[in-house]
Amino acid sequence: MSTVSTDVARVLIAGSWRNATPQSTFHSTDPNHNSELPQAFPVSTWEDCEAALEAADKAAAELRRVPPAKIAEFLYLYADKIEAAKDALVEAAYTETGLARSPRLGDVELPRTSNQLRAAADSCRSGNWALPTIDTKAGIRSCYRPLGPVCVFGPNNFPFAFNSVAGGDFAAAIAAGNPVIGKANSSHPETTRLLAELAHEAVVETGLPEATVQLIYRTSHADGERLVSDPRVGATGYTGSRSAGLTLKSAADRAGKPIYLELSSVNPVVITPGALVERNETIVNDFVTSVLMGTGQFCTNPGMVLLVAGDETESFISDVKDRFASTQSGTLLSPAVARSLSKSVSILTDLGADLLTGGGEPESDRCAFANTLMRIDGAKFLSDPEGFQTEAFGNASVLVVAKDIAELCDVIDHLEGNLTGCIYSKEDASEETDVEKISFVLEPKVGRILNDKMPTGVAVSAAMNHGGPYPATGHPGFTAVGVPASLLRFGKLTSFDNIRPTRLPALLQDSAPTAETMRLIDGQWRTGDVG
Amino acid sequence: MSTVSTDVARVLIAGSWRNATPQSTFHSTDPNHNSELPQAFPVSTWEDCEAALEAADKAAAELRRVPPAKIAEFLYLYADKIEAAKDALVEAAYTETGLARSPRLGDVELPRTSNQLRAAADSCRSGNWALPTIDTKAGIRSCYRPLGPVCVFGPNNFPFAFNSVAGGDFAAAIAAGNPVIGKANSSHPETTRLLAELAHEAVVETGLPEATVQLIYRTSHADGERLVSDPRVGATGYTGSRSAGLTLKSAADRAGKPIYLELSSVNPVVITPGALVERNETIVNDFVTSVLMGTGQFCTNPGMVLLVAGDETESFISDVKDRFASTQSGTLLSPAVARSLSKSVSILTDLGADLLTGGGEPESDRCAFANTLMRIDGAKFLSDPEGFQTEAFGNASVLVVAKDIAELCDVIDHLEGNLTGCIYSKEDASEETDVEKISFVLEPKVGRILNDKMPTGVAVSAAMNHGGPYPATGHPGFTAVGVPASLLRFGKLTSFDNIRPTRLPALLQDSAPTAETMRLIDGQWRTGDVG
Repeated sequence: MSTVSTDVARVLIAGSWRNATPQSTFHSTDPNHNSELPQAFPVSTWEDCEAALEAADKAAAELRRVPPAKIAEFLYLYADKIEAAKDALVEAAYTETGLARSPRLGDVELPRTSNQLRAAADSCRSGNWALPTIDTKAGIRSCYRPLGPVCVFGPNNFPFAFNSVAGGDFAAAIAAGNPVIGKANSSHPETTRLLAELAHEAVVETGLPEATVQLIYRTSHADGERLVSDPRVGATGYTGSRSAGLTLKSAADRAGKPIYLELSSVNPVVITPGALVERNETIVNDFVTSVLMGTGQFCTNPGMVLLVAGDETESFISDVKDRFASTQSGTLLSPAVARSLSKSVSILTDLGADLLTGGGEPESDRCAFANTLMRIDGAKFLSDPEGFQTEAFGNASVLVVAKDIAELCDVIDHLEGNLTGCIYSKEDASEETDVEKISFVLEPKVGRILNDKMPTGVAVSAAMNHGGPYPATGHPGFTAVGVPASLLRFGKLTSFDNIRPTRLPALLQDSAPTAETMRLIDGQWRTGDVG
Repeated sequence: MSTVSTDVARVLIAGSWRNATPQSTFHSTDPNHNSELPQAFPVSTWEDCEAALEAADKAAAELRRVPPAKIAEFLYLYADKIEAAKDALVEAAYTETGLARSPRLGDVELPRTSNQLRAAADSCRSGNWALPTIDTKAGIRSCYRPLGPVCVFGPNNFPFAFNSVAGGDFAAAIAAGNPVIGKANSSHPETTRLLAELAHEAVVETGLPEATVQLIYRTSHADGERLVSDPRVGATGYTGSRSAGLTLKSAADRAGKPIYLELSSVNPVVITPGALVERNETIVNDFVTSVLMGTGQFCTNPGMVLLVAGDETESFISDVKDRFASTQSGTLLSPAVARSLSKSVSILTDLGADLLTGGGEPESDRCAFANTLMRIDGAKFLSDPEGFQTEAFGNASVLVVAKDIAELCDVIDHLEGNLTGCIYSKEDASEETDVEKISFVLEPKVGRILNDKMPTGVAVSAAMNHGGPYPATGHPGFTAVGVPASLLRFGKLTSFDNIRPTRLPALLQDSAPTAETMRLIDGQWRTGDVG
């Protein structure tokens, strides 16, 4: 007799939906009612991981023989299926995450997800992600090639766009020619199951190896570490909490396996006095919208604002405080997020941050926490930079008021690596000397620097870097968003030296595989055939 | 009174040649006479590392304001100085390494080194290494930016081309805009000192920050680990032994610091029966030259040959054995290399490899070891794949004779990650089915795959990958040789989102910084201005 009842959700392994070998089960929560949802999901044992790895290893070899156009066809078909299933997906994600059905889930995140799959498909088809390079004089050609099975651990805050079987890491890994073993985020397993069903249908209809997409829901921490360091794994993409991410990194590092992390970030926003004198209302509005939109649950949420002491700053703070206090707090993703936010706010106030508004305990009838604004001065921050960079993930932010620009720069100099950093300044050039100083210290700390704009929008652009120095990520050279750059994480650089022409991959043959393919041929990037 | 006599060589820190704070001293050896050279070099304490880090941190900030053209000017000037000082450099390197003055040191490695500096300079000037990307619609621009001070640990086997203050990692780190802290290889400290003198002169004459190039000779292992994980360090480049490299990797990984390793590799060479029937003499000659040239002391030395049982293979083996036995063995780089080679050969023969020729103890009056050829069959290899992949660095190679192509592929399937893999086959297409099978399993194991050619030549080409899967290196996506790709290792990806035009780095402004600058503008790689 099975230790688990038959209504436990099935895992997708080696092309079939089958009963997991669970050690236990878990349930997700409806955050709008703070109540457990009925569907049970399995916590897999190593047996499932082993079966998935074995199947992924075989699929990886098969995929290497599949033309990129066919992989692109799969991604396109999957994107279409996601759009066709919009209502069911939005409903499931709403139930599990509390994020608004519209515009957020249905009109923003879902189209972003399908379009991201299509952008990855285009890059897969042209091969442009792989930086094909041809040196006819030396007789050497190179490009990035598939790396092997990719494990994707998705975060709680984007049930579609960063989903382990539909999001950015997934799209990048597949488009680079690798199978994916998705590990669902425990806060939205049903949404993930629905997506995996669509992905599996698309795999079958396109005729890709069936284990191209696999799904498990949860494992023990030890099995997670074993998974990312398994010899059969090519790489891992992880988005989530710092502590779990660094534990996985440590395991992967020991095994020499690449792991791409996107961890916590406080995303400092600098606002100069001149900017506040000039357009306080606009900036208050930008900031309040950015922090409270999605209840602050963005990787790039502006969790820290750096200001210079003065009347205009007091006025800004007062306005923001009023807006925070008077705005109904949004729903948080899960009870765990609410507890964690409450705890982080306590840590910050215990360290000496002044609580301007919010704080307290999470609500009990839904997952929610009061919009929270804290304040410290620059000297206080500098007395414990590590402590005051505690991330409060959610609808909270810390204002750091420096006595002058020099102290503000000193504060920035003590920041850890972050995903983003913003500077709002006066529209004319009269603050340029200060801004130059601020930019100079801020840029090395962040993956993306912005002017006059909040960081919460992450465009899917070739020029996007959703990355940054450690500990925001595990490596300063890679981005998790943006095509084609995000695909490079899942490629293996390979040179073909004196290889006979017929044995070269299509991407490196004299004849260009597609009209869009851009190759660095004898020092010039161009389309077209060699010669 | 100092614990060290005044004739101890000085370290180059913060722009001045000064006495180290040594805990002890060491001497290099003249391998041609197996005798200690007179000059004493210091083993620095942490005090020197701290001073170098402090100076490098400041230099890194200053370098960020230096136009790339000026950094390129430095690299060009340094290349000229190296060529002008050819005689002294070749003499020093010959004395410390035993490598031939001509053609090796003077006519091959030295010009390669200066040309590599010039190639890096060109890429620095144009900015082409930094993959500048402009998305005018989204208002986002990105490129790679300097990462911070780079520690370079050079290997023993290339006193110029991989030298920590002149070689590939150095050129790449500087061209990417970073200062370098060079750690000399203990087998050629005097050569390194001479190079650092030239580099320092060029730094001063060009007007770069004086700590752009610094040199220490040796540290304790603990201080080495502390150095690569220091918060002020941007990244580390290491070429050398696996054990020391993995220890440094572990320290750097824990601190979230990128480290690029180039470690051991046996560089399998597959030779099909058809190739041997057709051109045995050519292949014997290629192989013997490749292994015995430079006394086998190349990262890409063919340390393992995979053959299929049969008369033609016996004939090949017999011919190679004769050539090995009848060729005077070359000089090895140091007593340590000779001891290590002897030890590795013992490990392999103890495991059951047949010694066809060579083996024994190192010579005593010079650093040398008999040309060594060993043989095992495929089944033997498969009984202990890890053991039989023990690298015998030097003039030695292991022949693995498989019973058929299937077993040969199985042997390949059990190989660790390697820098290179070669396939020699019949000139016509009659072996194509077998070659396809062999290539398919070999390619994922290696960074560079070759046909009909030995792996020892490593061209400085845009299409070169001198890298490969772990444990040949620490990451499968990067190359240590080849411009511009090798520079990417020392860059930080940075997006500029809505940044005011005058604040953009020159590389990302509408106006192209040089006529050669290629940028991905709205999806097309091209030269010229935006718009």
